Amino acid sequence: MRKIMVNFKIIAKDGKARAGVLKTAHGEVKTPVFMPVGTQASVKALAPDDLKTAGAQIILGNTYHLYLRPGSKLVKKMGGLHKFMNWDGPILTDSGGFQAFSLGAMIAHDVRKVPGKKVYLEKEKKVVKRVKLLSKITDEGVQFTSHLDGSKHLLTPEKSIEVQLDLGSDIVLVLDELLSPMHGKRYVKKSLERTHDWGLRSKKYFDNNLAKSTNPDAQLFGIVQGVYDQKIREEEAKWVVDQGFEGVSIGGSFGTSKYWGAEEMDWAAPKAIYQTMDWVVPNLTEQLPKHILGIGEVQDFFECVERGIDMFDCVAPTRRARNGSFYIQPKNGGNVKNKFVLSIQRAEFIDDSRPIDPGCKCFSCQNFSRSYLRHLYLSGEILYHRLATIHNVFFITNLMGQIREAILDKKLNKLKQKWLE
Amino acid sequence: MRKIMVNFKIIAKDGKARAGVLKTAHGEVKTPVFMPVGTQASVKALAPDDLKTAGAQIILGNTYHLYLRPGSKLVKKMGGLHKFMNWDGPILTDSGGFQAFSLGAMIAHDVRKVPGKKVYLEKEKKVVKRVKLLSKITDEGVQFTSHLDGSKHLLTPEKSIEVQLDLGSDIVLVLDELLSPMHGKRYVKKSLERTHDWGLRSKKYFDNNLAKSTNPDAQLFGIVQGVYDQKIREEEAKWVVDQGFEGVSIGGSFGTSKYWGAEEMDWAAPKAIYQTMDWVVPNLTEQLPKHILGIGEVQDFFECVERGIDMFDCVAPTRRARNGSFYIQPKNGGNVKNKFVLSIQRAEFIDDSRPIDPGCKCFSCQNFSRSYLRHLYLSGEILYHRLATIHNVFFITNLMGQIREAILDKKLNKLKQKWLE
Repeated sequence: MRKIMVNFKIIAKDGKARAGVLKTAHGEVKTPVFMPVGTQASVKALAPDDLKTAGAQIILGNTYHLYLRPGSKLVKKMGGLHKFMNWDGPILTDSGGFQAFSLGAMIAHDVRKVPGKKVYLEKEKKVVKRVKLLSKITDEGVQFTSHLDGSKHLLTPEKSIEVQLDLGSDIVLVLDELLSPMHGKRYVKKSLERTHDWGLRSKKYFDNNLAKSTNPDAQLFGIVQGVYDQKIREEEAKWVVDQGFEGVSIGGSFGTSKYWGAEEMDWAAPKAIYQTMDWVVPNLTEQLPKHILGIGEVQDFFECVERGIDMFDCVAPTRRARNGSFYIQPKNGGNVKNKFVLSIQRAEFIDDSRPIDPGCKCFSCQNFSRSYLRHLYLSGEILYHRLATIHNVFFITNLMGQIREAILDKKLNKLKQKWLE
Repeated sequence: MRKIMVNFKIIAKDGKARAGVLKTAHGEVKTPVFMPVGTQASVKALAPDDLKTAGAQIILGNTYHLYLRPGSKLVKKMGGLHKFMNWDGPILTDSGGFQAFSLGAMIAHDVRKVPGKKVYLEKEKKVVKRVKLLSKITDEGVQFTSHLDGSKHLLTPEKSIEVQLDLGSDIVLVLDELLSPMHGKRYVKKSLERTHDWGLRSKKYFDNNLAKSTNPDAQLFGIVQGVYDQKIREEEAKWVVDQGFEGVSIGGSFGTSKYWGAEEMDWAAPKAIYQTMDWVVPNLTEQLPKHILGIGEVQDFFECVERGIDMFDCVAPTRRARNGSFYIQPKNGGNVKNKFVLSIQRAEFIDDSRPIDPGCKCFSCQNFSRSYLRHLYLSGEILYHRLATIHNVFFITNLMGQIREAILDKKLNKLKQKWLE
């Protein structure tokens, strides 16, 4: 048996919120931390030095995407993902479980879309759309049809770990099935049995193959699923603790759902997220680093950190940048309702010589005006994407830094009020 | 009358080749120099700091494009083009003459295309294609139909200078009509009369309006046209010298043409270019800085510098970067035949851990492998464009630096042999 390392140290607490340090084979990470997503061996539009300047400490890579392109065996041959993309900081890789969902149940259940759409639990068959899905779950693993060329691939738990070990990831995630709120309880129970099996198979493969892998000091995180059911979530948390992982990632599609009482009809209904954290976190060992998968609105950071979460990842900052949305601080008009973003294409910015977010210390705000960025965006200039992404990543990593400082000073609630009112 | 300043100093000569220093309102430029093209207030994919790191001393902006988008009045309001795009080095702006050609005669005459196509001088009517042209030349100016929204614009010589003065350009070009080898002699003569008239009108407007413009220390370059006729080219050179400009730009479409005896059927047939330089340069005052418009193959730099040219601009390095072509030195396989580029998508580079151009000191070659750049290119990653463009711009500015050093050492011919064999 591989010995589970204690890599996480809690430095200070403010209520349940923790400021910590996570050791990895590629350096220490100060938590709470936000991890920008680098799907295809690149955080879109940014070079590694941009990432560092923007304050990124650790990035996330996607197993499914890298396995298909450029191929994890190639990345291994080139010395691992760090060397391939020239990023010498830590990397966490997901397991492919999210893509199994996004190319499968998410499409079938239309979880992503349609504000106000009614959701009938236990009746998922009624609302399954007749679309060709690119993933199918079996007990053996996930059957993928490549979104690139239609080729077929079976991602077993063993294969997912093999890919992640080939990439040389610092933090490896077990393969899991992500459930949607539209999965009925019977399906959920069956799925969780499978997720347990996959977790054990993942761990066994990891333990047996780590020593001779690209990054022999990698660590393994377990995943807690369980959707909308308190009892199931609590049991899942305890089960994951019992298996012995270096950390835990918490998953779930918190889709549009009456069941959750979510007033805000968005794919990531806040109340569902926070309630899930309330159920899961108290049942995880305090010392474990805790990661919530794919969550990234400003208010989520506060609400989840308050509940004991240490790590976040989300495509929102980078994707929004590409779509013309820049984060702004409360003093510049950012609030929960506008998701703390302004749209750069608004006509009022035509001749606005101010930086995007006055007071921001990022490279883009220090050097360019709203007027210029609007011009670049509307002209389709490539430079736009880098400047916008630098700002958004800086903004979120900087906010995380503020949250950490507030925890150290026991003033998290004050900071939260300042941001969320 | 505005006093014409002597801004150009020749430091050393090697044959007709000169190493010089050109003073501008935004600093000195060491010549021979290559100017990357920043069409829409951005050298595509690069921020100003990237440009500096890549060795760019001066960039070129396009009057027609900036006039349409974001609009030269807006740029003026934002403090001029330097401030708008945060580039504090010199800027040369073209006059719109090239776009009058590229949206008009170039399409009509199909000059750009068709290797081996027969060209019938004096019979241009026969080969005019029935396409809707977006520019039309009249004595008053160029009638443009915007390629963006179809709106109509009249670019007179006065308007072209007004736009350039609003932009705050350091080196302003007079409005000219670019001729193609398919224009008959009668048309050429009529056109050159008009170009003289436009040159004088440009100069008059410039002289009368410079003092109160965005950049009161700007300078004005005249343009020599005249296509394929030695006597006309010689007369044009003398005419331009007589008008009193701070410098001279030499223009011409050196298209596919039997007349020129060009063996290489390319839009910029080398022999035609070099012959034109032989005709024009000796008839220009030595002290004037000399710029050839839109030329940029490696061999052209050597051939034109040898003939007394000081300044170059071309979209080739930046456009080729976006299309997957990277410049490489002779020691790495670059030669005239392959235009000194390799195509990054070649399968052999899949697992090639070497930099694009071993020995190159650019940011991209110092940090990334062929394998990684190939992956970024084939995956459509935005980062690719920046890394490729940095390399190509660095490569060409570095080559220019080598050429300058060779002139100082009186070893230009040796350097030329090393590059062109």
